[in-house]
Amino acid sequence: MRTSELQTPALVIDVDALDRNLAAMAGRLPGSRLRPHVKAHKCTSLAARQRGVGHTGFTGATIRELEGMHAAGLGQDLLLANEVLDASRLGRLVDDGARVTLAVDSEATINAAVRGGVREVVIDVNVGLPRCGCDPAHAGPLADRARASGLSVRGVMGYEGHLMMVLDQAEQLARVESSMADLLRAHDRVGGELVSAGGTGTHHLNTWANEIQAGSYALMDSQYNTHAFPFTQALWVETTIISEGRGWLVGDCGLKANGMDHGNPSLPGATVWFLSDEHLTFAPDPQGPLRSAAVGDRVRVIPAHCDPTVAYHEAMWLARGDEVIDRWAIDLRGW
Amino acid sequence: MRTSELQTPALVIDVDALDRNLAAMAGRLPGSRLRPHVKAHKCTSLAARQRGVGHTGFTGATIRELEGMHAAGLGQDLLLANEVLDASRLGRLVDDGARVTLAVDSEATINAAVRGGVREVVIDVNVGLPRCGCDPAHAGPLADRARASGLSVRGVMGYEGHLMMVLDQAEQLARVESSMADLLRAHDRVGGELVSAGGTGTHHLNTWANEIQAGSYALMDSQYNTHAFPFTQALWVETTIISEGRGWLVGDCGLKANGMDHGNPSLPGATVWFLSDEHLTFAPDPQGPLRSAAVGDRVRVIPAHCDPTVAYHEAMWLARGDEVIDRWAIDLRGW
Repeated sequence: MRTSELQTPALVIDVDALDRNLAAMAGRLPGSRLRPHVKAHKCTSLAARQRGVGHTGFTGATIRELEGMHAAGLGQDLLLANEVLDASRLGRLVDDGARVTLAVDSEATINAAVRGGVREVVIDVNVGLPRCGCDPAHAGPLADRARASGLSVRGVMGYEGHLMMVLDQAEQLARVESSMADLLRAHDRVGGELVSAGGTGTHHLNTWANEIQAGSYALMDSQYNTHAFPFTQALWVETTIISEGRGWLVGDCGLKANGMDHGNPSLPGATVWFLSDEHLTFAPDPQGPLRSAAVGDRVRVIPAHCDPTVAYHEAMWLARGDEVIDRWAIDLRGW
Repeated sequence: MRTSELQTPALVIDVDALDRNLAAMAGRLPGSRLRPHVKAHKCTSLAARQRGVGHTGFTGATIRELEGMHAAGLGQDLLLANEVLDASRLGRLVDDGARVTLAVDSEATINAAVRGGVREVVIDVNVGLPRCGCDPAHAGPLADRARASGLSVRGVMGYEGHLMMVLDQAEQLARVESSMADLLRAHDRVGGELVSAGGTGTHHLNTWANEIQAGSYALMDSQYNTHAFPFTQALWVETTIISEGRGWLVGDCGLKANGMDHGNPSLPGATVWFLSDEHLTFAPDPQGPLRSAAVGDRVRVIPAHCDPTVAYHEAMWLARGDEVIDRWAIDLRGW
């Protein structure tokens, strides 16, 4: 089958670009130095490919993601990098043979881990992003509390998410160092083998963490493309032009096919005007490659943010050139 | 079961508010005066409830929506208010006994309708929103072309989407009148029994169309709540507070549980700071109802835009007060 025969809108992966991205990251952060975050692609087939280049531990953001990873045979070392108040489904995963490590940042979440039957935790430390994670000064007492409750404390995690898009390298390095200093101080007191942090935006300079939780590098999006990384865009939304107006064209790829929190997706050779539920209105650049585009033609729309884009779709199609070679279910959706 | 026992994030409907909204709209636009748009809720159980208050025709934006409606026994008069270039699945619906009317706005989409086995169309007329729809002057020739191709032309449709949020009533009335004048001129030349237009934002004053394609009125969202309509918020995202920071709280309802094109969802009694994939960071108002909220508590988040919010979820839970009384599958997702 050709990509032009796919029912649109359809999520398509350039499989060679994906493999180049996976290889480039595995070269930089081999084996356990990377704990790929599956929230970016929600796809166990893609995770298996990450496993194939040497990464054995994985990060997830939801219970469903961990359940699906275990069901797919990828549950040897799963970190839920998020807090939960009902850990009973995680306890069942542990009973079923998965290794599950849960982030905790309060007495309430430690109690939930114990109640749910989870046995291993990391102390989640706030390193500057106003989100989860305890005050660094509280990490030690929380670790004591967790151990006293019978939990094994594997170390610390912290997410410097507020620094992912700092594009000035010197500034980014200084701020990540300061952020990780908080995490390392907490780790001094907490102990354990894990110092887990980072993401695609800081993977290249966060040398303080001993594992990086990157996910977006595999597929990329128009936001992360602004970094000078050796990762190329591997994902697009295959779109059919369905209508033509006075100065604009309309594609069948709307805001139910694109995560919109980072703004409009992009379309090389065109200016995107706006999206509706099932429409993308755009104007081709007068001298660009789409200047002759017409109703029935296909265009390839680049998501602004891959994670919430993927979460709208049931499957990704793998393509090499124009040939569709496989279909991967996006099987980690939901909660 | 209580709503507090639902796995979060969870989409919950106040069933009494829903029924009041359906009754209020059926009072204003009874029977065939409303052709409810299922894109807003993507749920055949909810559509059946709309049928129960007297509406027999429905509008959809995707082929999948029409397929699901027919499978649920609601396919007596389905309008696909969108253009498609491959209508073969719609042709199979027609062969299976559904009544399907397809929007066309070009020779290419007329040819696609014929090729796919669709028998009935409306001419989609552009009435000011830069999206689909032909120039009003072309509607007549397109209708001639469609009839010459063997299609039955049921009339015209046009969507004045750019006028949904004009809150000044006199201005909105004047602009809708002007927009509908284009549609009526096209209809004079096209003929047929249908003049289909409108949405929740213009349902109260668009008296030129003989059927209104409203959808959002059933569940509502924070954007449509700015209108002075007799519809109340019937939908929320049940959210658990999972973490507490220095001046903020974090809920487990992120940008994969909320359509983000209209901005952040709202949380009565708090200021929403930002959303991440699976997190909502917010600050309770110092004197408000959430001032004592703590980890483990539940909060009810109001979507900014119901349509793309619903599309992220597998199901909606129906609640009366705090009691969960049913689960409705969101069975019209995808394409």
